[in-house]
Order: sequence, then C-alpha cells, then structure tokens
Amino acid sequence: MAKYVFGVDVGGTTVKLGLFDESGTVLDKWEIPTRTENGGVNILPDIAASIQSKMSEKAITKEDVAGVGVGAPGPVDGNGVIHKAVNLGWSEMNLKKELSTLLGDMRVKGGNDANVAALGEMWKGGGQGHENLVAVTLGTGVGGGIIINGKIMTGATGSGGEIGHIHVEDEETEACGCGNYGCLEEYASATGITRLANRKLRESDKDSVLRQGEVSAKTVFDAVKAGDELAIEIAKQFGDYLGKGLAVVAGVVNPEIFVIGGGVSKAGEVLFDYIRPSFEKTVFHGCKDTQFALATLGNDAGIYGAAKMVLD
Amino acid sequence: MAKYVFGVDVGGTTVKLGLFDESGTVLDKWEIPTRTENGGVNILPDIAASIQSKMSEKAITKEDVAGVGVGAPGPVDGNGVIHKAVNLGWSEMNLKKELSTLLGDMRVKGGNDANVAALGEMWKGGGQGHENLVAVTLGTGVGGGIIINGKIMTGATGSGGEIGHIHVEDEETEACGCGNYGCLEEYASATGITRLANRKLRESDKDSVLRQGEVSAKTVFDAVKAGDELAIEIAKQFGDYLGKGLAVVAGVVNPEIFVIGGGVSKAGEVLFDYIRPSFEKTVFHGCKDTQFALATLGNDAGIYGAAKMVLD
Repeated sequence: MAKYVFGVDVGGTTVKLGLFDESGTVLDKWEIPTRTENGGVNILPDIAASIQSKMSEKAITKEDVAGVGVGAPGPVDGNGVIHKAVNLGWSEMNLKKELSTLLGDMRVKGGNDANVAALGEMWKGGGQGHENLVAVTLGTGVGGGIIINGKIMTGATGSGGEIGHIHVEDEETEACGCGNYGCLEEYASATGITRLANRKLRESDKDSVLRQGEVSAKTVFDAVKAGDELAIEIAKQFGDYLGKGLAVVAGVVNPEIFVIGGGVSKAGEVLFDYIRPSFEKTVFHGCKDTQFALATLGNDAGIYGAAKMVLD
Repeated sequence: MAKYVFGVDVGGTTVKLGLFDESGTVLDKWEIPTRTENGGVNILPDIAASIQSKMSEKAITKEDVAGVGVGAPGPVDGNGVIHKAVNLGWSEMNLKKELSTLLGDMRVKGGNDANVAALGEMWKGGGQGHENLVAVTLGTGVGGGIIINGKIMTGATGSGGEIGHIHVEDEETEACGCGNYGCLEEYASATGITRLANRKLRESDKDSVLRQGEVSAKTVFDAVKAGDELAIEIAKQFGDYLGKGLAVVAGVVNPEIFVIGGGVSKAGEVLFDYIRPSFEKTVFHGCKDTQFALATLGNDAGIYGAAKMVLD
C-alpha cells in the first residue's frame, strides 16, 4: 500500500515540493528554481527529476507513492489541463498527463494554485473542521479558492473562485491588471491598499504617520494599530470593498467559513474589524453567521493542498 | 427494480406532483392545494396521501418506486432539513425524515425549490448537456440555483445560490423584502422592473406608451419590442444590474451557462440584449464565454428536478 504522497506548488520563481505521509504529516520539504525560459519547457522535467532524486535518497519505490499533486498559477480544468500560465511561460499544457509520463505513469493531479491552497487550509490550516469554505489570498493580487463538500470547485473552464476580479466599483477610472475596471483586487490586495492609501494621502490634508516613509499594506495596518486616523479611513475603504465582495460570495456559495491568507493577512484579526461591518450590512440573512479565520499554513498551503488532492 | 419516481414541488398555494419513469418521461402530473393553516401541519400528510392514492390507482407497489423528491420554498440543508419556510407556515422541519415515515420508509430527498428547479432545467430543460449551470428565476422575486458537476450546490446552511439577495447598489433607499438595501431582486424581479419603471416614469417627462394603462414587467418589455424609448431606458437599467450581478456569480462559480426562467423570461431572448453588455464589461475574462439560455420547463421545472434528485 502506498505510504507517501508528493505535493508540488509551482510559482513564478520557485517550485515548492513536499513529501507527506498519508495522514498529512510533512516529512520533507524543499524548493527548486522555476526555469521559465523557453516557454517553461524545463519546469515539469525539473520537477520530475527532483521527485525521483528524493525517492532514491529516501529509498522510496513507485509503489510506495499514492501520487503527485501539482498546483500551478493559471486556470486548470477538470482534466488537469492548464490554460495559459503567463508567469511560467506556458500556454495550454496537460499538466497531469505530461508530468505523469515523465514520472513513468505515476498518478498525477493538477489544480489552480489558489484552489489548491484553499484545499490545504481546509485540510491542515485555518479551515480545519470545515468542508465548505472560501479561501481568500490577499497578496500582490487577490486570489480565491472555493471548497464545496471537501472538494475544489473548479468551474467550467477552471476559473471558479476568481474572486479577485468580481466587480465592486462602477466609478473606477484605473484599469485592473485583467483589463476591467473596479475589480475587488484593485482595493483589497497589497497593491490595492497601497493605491487606496496614496489616493487618500493626496485627497486629504489630515496629518498621518503614513506621510513619512514607505506606504504599503503593512505600514497602513501598523498605523491603524497605532490609532492613525487617516490609516483608519483607508482600512475602512479596504474593508468596505472586501466585506461587500465577500458578502456576495457568501450569498452565492454559502460557505461555513472564510479563511483569509496572503501577505496582507499578516496584519492579523484587525482585518476582520474592517471587513465585518459591510459584510454584515449587505449579506443575505441566511449567511450572516459565516465565520472568518486567518490562514495558518502561509506559503506551505499549496504543497499541503496538492498532496490532499491526490488522497481524495 | 424500481421503475418510477415521484417529483413534488411545494408552493405557497398548490403542491405540484409528477410521476416519472427513470428516464425522465413524465407519466402523470397533478396538483393538490397547499393547506398552510396550523403551521402547515397537513402539507406532508396530504402529499403522502396523494402519492399513495396515485400508486393504488396505477397499481404501483412500493418496490416499483425509487423514491420521492421534494422541493420546498426555504433553505434545505444536506440532511433534508428545511429551516423556516415562511410561505408554508413551517419552522424547522425534517422534510426527508417526516415524509419518509408517512410513506412507510420510502426513500425521500429534499431540496430548496429554486435549486431543485435548476436541476430540472439541467436534466430536461434549457440547460440540457451542461453539468455546471446557474438557473436564475426572475419572478416575483429573484431565485437562483447552482449546479456543480451535475449536483445541487446546497451550501453550508442551505442558502447556496441565493443570488436574488446579492448586493448590487449602494445608494438604494427602499428596503428589499429581506431587510437589506440594494439587493439584485430589487431591480431584476418582476416587482423590481415595475418599481424601476414607476421611478423612471416619475423622473422623466419623456412620452411613453407606459404612461397609459398598467405598468408591469410584461408591459415594459412589450413596449421595448415596440421601440418605446423610455421602456428601453428601463430595460437598460434592469439589464445593467442583472448583467453585473451575473458577472459576479460567473466569477465565483464559473458555470457553462445561465438558464433564465420565471415570469419575466417570457419576454424572450430580448432580455439577453440588455443583460449581456454589462455582463461582458465586468466579468472575469476566463468567464466571458458563459452562455445564456431561456428556461423551457416553466412551472414543471420543480417536479422534474425533484425526481432527478432521487435518481442521482
């Protein structure tokens, strides 16, 4: 019987890998660089070689391995085909089949990185004990992953849970990275918070600690904790948008819990003080009791979720 | 082997019942009144009696029946418990268990009526050939049902797919029936369209056929088809709200298709001309190809979906 499973999280600069036992204990974890040159042609062979070398190092045979789960930054459909992963140089690629072939027909499952991280947080992170959850990653962008009855909701074309690009503002004049105007990501990502802060600093003549030094999601929330009025106004704007956005998500999928991760979430539970008011004001009454929790696995959520995909 | 299945759709004034074979052909359908008095205590016994009388009429034995599916107007959780069905007089009620007991332990499945209707449209209606769809019912209110991989997405507390109450307008001053302000239902239901129309008629001094006679969703769309300018403005408002709302829903669940039903959908495909512009403007690019279709089962969607629930 198989005793091990590998979880792989392919990022734009490094690939994270983890070796797990079937109960979800991580036995080893390591990284290799992501070689994105030449259309990312080396990425999967590098991953396969790294897994095989780990197996010989640990004297693990193919029969000992339940499979390899892979999360990657792009829409991955139910057949394990990734459609465009700009950061990796890939256009359409059958992640599941290609990697399986490279590993001598080992079992492989593929998923979108944000969805896979959501599964990781459900399994061993901030969402433990819940089978219906939405994970929200507030990083450079806003990512989302939706878990329904313990499984990733992929959607028809692998775009399920793309909550960073739900429309929350009609009056926006600056375009989001996706080309639309008024996406949630423009207000609730680290970049978005910085943008809101710079706008507020320009428009207001209130004094603020943010007028000295760097303006970032971190310095904004540090200032909020220190009672800085202008920073609190910025946090309110951020929370209004995110709370309203998550209220809509709740009305659609009715999760038990939102698990909030990514760099911005390092600010801690203070975030919830700003998200909850607009969430509670606009959410459908049947979803008012949706919980909020912080993600706990940090950058390891991806390898955990990737491993869990294989075990399901 | 079981050859039959019953589908039951419990409404506020009548209960619709259908007898189906396992391929989904309806063999008989009929209605009984919904007796909502005394906390709706008679409703399930009436349904059980009606099914049993149909079985003896047709000489169908219990062994011939795969089960009974029931859709009801309220949030129904994964255990078949309905939490508050105001229109029926019910507070919490174990639909599945109670009806099963009344039918001598026959297999029963329960679901929310809008979700069940969505399943019906997937099986035999406007969504045939699709396993990931969102059904939208534009009636007195706006109902929604979400099907993921061929199954109803119930949500943690049975509120999955409550898209009538997603927040789409910050500036609304009139409350929705649910108590919130700015719900999609306030603009996209039959009642909502009438409200938009009356507001527009007050605010504008443009001539319009709507200034004579009754103002309703039907007369608005009839006037749209006749080229009435004011009616077209109203239809644009309706379509802006609904298109934006459905764009968010698409970004969250990424369905293959939206199936639009309910009284308002009798206006026909002209609706899509007004929904699509704001949908396409605000939707995540990975979901731009989401299709739109009209529901085809009308008031029978509920009995079809209820039967299908049992067969899954």
